[in-house]
Amino acid sequence: MPDYKAPLRDMRFLMDEVFDYPATYAAIGAVDATPDLVGAILEEGAKFCEQVLAPLNRSGDEEGAVWKDGEVTTPKGFKEAFAQYVEGGWNGLASDPAYGGQGLPSSLAMAIGEMVAAANTSWGMYPGLTHGAMSAIHAHGSEEQKQTYLTKLTEGRWTGTMCLTEPHCGTDLGIIKTRAVPQADGSYAVSGTKIFISAGEHDMSENIVHLVLAKLPDAPAGTKGISLFIVPKFNVGADGEVAERNGVSCGSIEHKMGIKASATCVMNFDSAKGFLIGELNKGLNCMFTMMNHARLGTGMQGLCNGEASYQGALRYANDRLQMRSLTGPKAPDKPADPIIVHPDVRRMLLTMKSLNEGCRALGYFTAQLLDIAHRSPDEEKREEAEGLLAFLTPICKAFMTEAGLEATSLGMQVFGGHGYIREWGMEQLMRDARIAPIYEGTNGIQALDLLGRKVLGSQGKLLRGFSKRVHKLCEANAEHGKFKAQVAQLAKLNQQWGEMVQQIGMAAMKNPDEVGAASVDFLMFSGYVVLAHFWLQMALVAEQKLAEGSSEKAFYESKLMTCEFYFKRILPRTAAHQLALAAGSDCMMQMTPEHFAV
Amino acid sequence: MPDYKAPLRDMRFLMDEVFDYPATYAAIGAVDATPDLVGAILEEGAKFCEQVLAPLNRSGDEEGAVWKDGEVTTPKGFKEAFAQYVEGGWNGLASDPAYGGQGLPSSLAMAIGEMVAAANTSWGMYPGLTHGAMSAIHAHGSEEQKQTYLTKLTEGRWTGTMCLTEPHCGTDLGIIKTRAVPQADGSYAVSGTKIFISAGEHDMSENIVHLVLAKLPDAPAGTKGISLFIVPKFNVGADGEVAERNGVSCGSIEHKMGIKASATCVMNFDSAKGFLIGELNKGLNCMFTMMNHARLGTGMQGLCNGEASYQGALRYANDRLQMRSLTGPKAPDKPADPIIVHPDVRRMLLTMKSLNEGCRALGYFTAQLLDIAHRSPDEEKREEAEGLLAFLTPICKAFMTEAGLEATSLGMQVFGGHGYIREWGMEQLMRDARIAPIYEGTNGIQALDLLGRKVLGSQGKLLRGFSKRVHKLCEANAEHGKFKAQVAQLAKLNQQWGEMVQQIGMAAMKNPDEVGAASVDFLMFSGYVVLAHFWLQMALVAEQKLAEGSSEKAFYESKLMTCEFYFKRILPRTAAHQLALAAGSDCMMQMTPEHFAV
Repeated sequence: MPDYKAPLRDMRFLMDEVFDYPATYAAIGAVDATPDLVGAILEEGAKFCEQVLAPLNRSGDEEGAVWKDGEVTTPKGFKEAFAQYVEGGWNGLASDPAYGGQGLPSSLAMAIGEMVAAANTSWGMYPGLTHGAMSAIHAHGSEEQKQTYLTKLTEGRWTGTMCLTEPHCGTDLGIIKTRAVPQADGSYAVSGTKIFISAGEHDMSENIVHLVLAKLPDAPAGTKGISLFIVPKFNVGADGEVAERNGVSCGSIEHKMGIKASATCVMNFDSAKGFLIGELNKGLNCMFTMMNHARLGTGMQGLCNGEASYQGALRYANDRLQMRSLTGPKAPDKPADPIIVHPDVRRMLLTMKSLNEGCRALGYFTAQLLDIAHRSPDEEKREEAEGLLAFLTPICKAFMTEAGLEATSLGMQVFGGHGYIREWGMEQLMRDARIAPIYEGTNGIQALDLLGRKVLGSQGKLLRGFSKRVHKLCEANAEHGKFKAQVAQLAKLNQQWGEMVQQIGMAAMKNPDEVGAASVDFLMFSGYVVLAHFWLQMALVAEQKLAEGSSEKAFYESKLMTCEFYFKRILPRTAAHQLALAAGSDCMMQMTPEHFAV
Repeated sequence: MPDYKAPLRDMRFLMDEVFDYPATYAAIGAVDATPDLVGAILEEGAKFCEQVLAPLNRSGDEEGAVWKDGEVTTPKGFKEAFAQYVEGGWNGLASDPAYGGQGLPSSLAMAIGEMVAAANTSWGMYPGLTHGAMSAIHAHGSEEQKQTYLTKLTEGRWTGTMCLTEPHCGTDLGIIKTRAVPQADGSYAVSGTKIFISAGEHDMSENIVHLVLAKLPDAPAGTKGISLFIVPKFNVGADGEVAERNGVSCGSIEHKMGIKASATCVMNFDSAKGFLIGELNKGLNCMFTMMNHARLGTGMQGLCNGEASYQGALRYANDRLQMRSLTGPKAPDKPADPIIVHPDVRRMLLTMKSLNEGCRALGYFTAQLLDIAHRSPDEEKREEAEGLLAFLTPICKAFMTEAGLEATSLGMQVFGGHGYIREWGMEQLMRDARIAPIYEGTNGIQALDLLGRKVLGSQGKLLRGFSKRVHKLCEANAEHGKFKAQVAQLAKLNQQWGEMVQQIGMAAMKNPDEVGAASVDFLMFSGYVVLAHFWLQMALVAEQKLAEGSSEKAFYESKLMTCEFYFKRILPRTAAHQLALAAGSDCMMQMTPEHFAV
């Protein structure tokens, strides 16, 4: 399988040189997070991911999670790795010190999360879901709930889940059937079936804290009648430790295309004791507060799988000897040239590299926004960050997961027939990557969220919040000696972006289906423009460093060259999306079911 | 899993109404292949595929082929299905009557092959490889070899393989290491290891006839020293039946992403008795004579997986209730609307449908060319068909397999989370589809073959052979009341196609890497234009039928609407490919290995 090597230099390039994390950390009062400490943490994290998690990735895929009589066994080594993770203090890295966390910035935790998911996506699901539950309890739980559950979750002795989906509904949560009946003691009896519950049951922790969406018997119809409940696997005794088993059990686990070591559970709630968290009938709002975080995390999965695939493909392209370069032998002493000499192999590698690094820039910028939005003392900055977050989050989730799927598929292709063989580990990366465009809100739903709710819903304001930044960057570099052409290309797309929204907005006033018809192409167009913006920003920094005579010549030159490739060979995809979405909805909506069927 | 229903109406539309197979069948002397007989054969074939093969598809994936002590057991039911296939006379449908075949047109066999691979891709590999071996022996074998091997292969008592790849080479066959040492009796002792040998070992037939590429000890270096040998699993006795075991054995089988029921074997040849087929050192030429056929077959796999996925996704989109249409409830009596009301779900379904049906048209046109090229008494027609075949074959192989991968991924996406679960069968289709862009020459190799060998190698003549047809179609319909806009769109792309080739040709004279840098984008551009041509042709026929008052109104309307969708929402992808390839090779070739690595 492809050995994973954490791309620390690339990560630090973004954190320190492009986005100036240190300034943000100082501004939000994360005084402990000095560059030195951050560096030490990243290196330790890299060691753990490379040496402990990565070696369990292939075996985890082969073994899978196993269900038997309601219990789930994770693959060999998973439990021990989790103990080591907890022991190392990784779980509470960015959590509230009031409940045992270390209070470091969440952008730093996300960088650790990148390495975790790139080394072993399935394993990363267990702490990942736990962090989701922790955020919800931190934002909406009572002080007692925080003391009872959050402290244990932060400590890593207990893990968490999010229970939303039911057999008949995923996107459409308004029609959930799980019921919560109020009890005399103030608790609720929760009954129903939830599916696709990641980490719903496993052998890695003492207790599992489920956050469950359910409706009271007399709740209003639709999404306005949904409440959120804490339902622990084991009830908690007066001493704060696990007591008797609660009425919740794992009925089975799914057999899936990928992330096989992540247990995807059917959870049965049978008059399980639950506790309301947050306000009654405001359960969906409670969920949404953690959506930005979770969706960025899912977007990062795309990058992680793409990065691991790139590393494998690059190694293979340098090793595999096959055919001669058309411009003459490059390794005349060998029976053939390494395939990296062939232009089409380079096209594939550079497509992966330019998408990966562009996505990483988008992800790291967004993570910085999360820190600012949550912790900046400056209200104006918080608001600005919130606006950008609202706009960028669906792009992170959908664009980065599409890019990850493409990158992992290209990585297989570089390997030729060997890419299709399990032993090499390349096909696992594609299977693992394939879930990301689906879960945490399908990419179609993200696209509707972006275009409908965010962009049109704000009368274009949220788009302008970002495109103003693009405009400024272009304006400042319009006459740049090296990047003039790229700046002009980006400035033009930026302008078209706004015009496009106006056109869709006008059309949508007459016909609401125009939004759904344009949404995915709009999201993809947006993603390519956003990445172009960040590529230009990275190239400007790299150019500056080279001008200053940096000793890391190859590193910065590589940024310039990859930027050039992105603008020349990837960014033109925007043209196809523009033309497609301009075609409108009629050519889709005119068909009856009968027309589809024949 | 998605039930497969053979799309007989669509197939007949192409065979009878668009491409006039009956006229071709008459011209090539296939007098038995009357429309009535063809109809009966297709219906029987559909029954076999729907009722016998399709039910074994999921179980075949779960069980996989199993290797033990050199023997391979195929999944439950595979052997019996093969016996039924042979019994039904399907194996020799298009084979030479002189050796026991039925002599029907190979385009008809390909239509049967479509249903086989759509119902069960893995199972279809066993007869598929056999047909490859049969073609080679028919074209290059001696009369004695034909009597000995071809008759048994045609009968279906024996099966065949193609042994090309070795651990260190796939594309680069010039460096194979398998050796064939001449023996006193005129045979050869063949020794070496071949990998990725589909159907190399299994339990479905009495004997397996391997066609093996190997080199004589004193052979010229490179591809000019490769010869082709027949190496049977069991030697053949004087009575023509199997005798003692030959020195060939299956060392193991691969564990793969998909087509798990197809045994992909490591074959060890240890002084195995082999017989030269064709001329010495001309082995690669012998292989190439059957490439057109095999590559069309692989292209068809893309369509087959895409078609099966479309059928599943359409059924789900009609059944699954989720959210309300933005233009108001469409199923007010139900808790939510079926998801087919949502524009983005339609976008996905129509992308699948327009790619599938466009690819089928390309495949059926190409199959017709094969019949003409092999069997037409008119030399001019044969030559014209050969030229078109040379041009279209790499497009069939590469474009149709890319389209198949996209379609199967979209089919999963329509299912949301359920698409990722094995039980539903949608993810298997994507896993099965993923091999097709790799094997039978990677799509990168196909693209080089198209642009380098075929188009530039013929000074543009082979492109003109097709684009002249596009030009004529556009010219004849330039003022068409309904399709004027589409005709103009296609005519413009057709012109740009030629200009593009001139530009690449000019650039390639200075730098041969320009071909490799442009090739995949050129192939994809070509594929979209070719499909547009066929979509226009199909729409013209449908329009005509509607004008004549056909009773199949929905069928023909659907063709018009899908054509409209294709031109409006898929064909614009050409813009991205045009721009990308115009960027040239510098932005890829300037990087050193060091730049890739950081």
